Amino acid sequence: MNRQELVHSIREKQSYLCIGLDTDLHRIPRHLHTHADPVFAFNKAIIDATKDLCVSYKINTAFYECMGIRGWESLQRTIEYIPEGIFTIADAKRGDIGNTATQYAKTFFDTYNFDSVTVAPYMGQDSVTPFLAFTDKWAIMLGLTSNEGSKDFQLQRMEDGEYLYEKVLKTGAGWGTPDNLMFVVGATQTEQIARIRALVPDHFFLVPGVGAQGGDLAEISKRGMNKDCGLLVNVSRGIIYAGNGEDFAADARTAALQYQSEMASLLSSIAPAPAVGV
Amino acid sequence: MNRQELVHSIREKQSYLCIGLDTDLHRIPRHLHTHADPVFAFNKAIIDATKDLCVSYKINTAFYECMGIRGWESLQRTIEYIPEGIFTIADAKRGDIGNTATQYAKTFFDTYNFDSVTVAPYMGQDSVTPFLAFTDKWAIMLGLTSNEGSKDFQLQRMEDGEYLYEKVLKTGAGWGTPDNLMFVVGATQTEQIARIRALVPDHFFLVPGVGAQGGDLAEISKRGMNKDCGLLVNVSRGIIYAGNGEDFAADARTAALQYQSEMASLLSSIAPAPAVGV
Repeated sequence: MNRQELVHSIREKQSYLCIGLDTDLHRIPRHLHTHADPVFAFNKAIIDATKDLCVSYKINTAFYECMGIRGWESLQRTIEYIPEGIFTIADAKRGDIGNTATQYAKTFFDTYNFDSVTVAPYMGQDSVTPFLAFTDKWAIMLGLTSNEGSKDFQLQRMEDGEYLYEKVLKTGAGWGTPDNLMFVVGATQTEQIARIRALVPDHFFLVPGVGAQGGDLAEISKRGMNKDCGLLVNVSRGIIYAGNGEDFAADARTAALQYQSEMASLLSSIAPAPAVGV
Repeated sequence: MNRQELVHSIREKQSYLCIGLDTDLHRIPRHLHTHADPVFAFNKAIIDATKDLCVSYKINTAFYECMGIRGWESLQRTIEYIPEGIFTIADAKRGDIGNTATQYAKTFFDTYNFDSVTVAPYMGQDSVTPFLAFTDKWAIMLGLTSNEGSKDFQLQRMEDGEYLYEKVLKTGAGWGTPDNLMFVVGATQTEQIARIRALVPDHFFLVPGVGAQGGDLAEISKRGMNKDCGLLVNVSRGIIYAGNGEDFAADARTAALQYQSEMASLLSSIAPAPAVGV
């Protein structure tokens, strides 16, 4: 999916919601365990119930990998089930030297046909650029993450006084373009978000951390939106585990609808018309 | 495997060689393609031919992941085939927030029974500590890597004048112990290795970059060894692709034997007796 299609989808659905399919076999409703593939049965119901409210699904690969081959089968069924026109993210946070990074890019773009994959910046340029060589595919590079550990290195200062994460964003922005590179910016980092938007005005941000991790949707949107919206705000547990009974999918829809409604309102109040606003 | 067992194995085999099973379906000998699982057939022959010469096998997960479910089946057969007493490394470079990191730790330690997994430091403490909670299992954290991109961030200076990678090593060393934490230090970084050894005197280093990437075994050993040896030097392409005919495994053995012989000599000339020397 290219940038124009993504922006169009945000405008059409009045939503920049990404739903995180962090599906844990131990947390899904009990009645699904009779299915041959309970994780896929869960995801299928969530997708059916929310696909008109979100513009993206993010699959956290760890939750599938930990089940071994069975987990990869669930992942494959899920990615194949997600409708055309919805932006798909492999949240895999890969990063390795060039020839290995190429293998990872092939994995997620060719073998599984994701639109994008999250990548880690620590190993530098040759660990990221292989992901930028595919048409209409995206690398989503870690910038400033939502977790406590972001203080350990990302928020440490370099010799010129800027934070490490700022160097990462500025350097990374030179490797790709706003058409093939996004950045992960945690929703808990409200103090930093305006500064980050000033640094990289045109790139999309994938924003995790709203919901279970405590990030504030309105704050992050006011400070982080650009003329194309420029945000994909991810909610995982707050939507997919909104309910735990027979009607879990309806509960997930209710939770997703709340986010989408707030997003529609934020889009019209913040974004400069006519790019996304009306 | 615990540290004592690893050090014992190095002493017994007079080797600190790790063989990297970066097995690429497109690079293995043609005659193996008649096998139901050519990648496993290749790995099995390599393991049979080299298991007395190395103390560790490192599986670069990217090369398996890119083949989808079939690749994970090859990976599983391979890890199950590696004999007891050989230290196994999942070179997966995972790194994510706490609850996701826990899933990755379960993946490699429980689902696949690896002894260790490589982890990326960018997301900080809560992305690494879940890997340190398993008995006789190890996290191998990226320190200073062997690739060109290590200059982009790892070799940038922080406000106190130290390199980012030094902060990563010092901070990371506080999260684990020399009994459950190793660091990746690239063999191409000969200028830095003595400095790194001074910073973390007791930890094992996983050293990639000898062979195809140009690292010098003698240099890195002289500067990086400690009283327990403290090094696992990885060679991948230089051993597994030493030959490409019917007798590829014999060629791999010849290449591995050269490394092991040099290592035996380096162990006796460098390491202080009696820990590893004689």
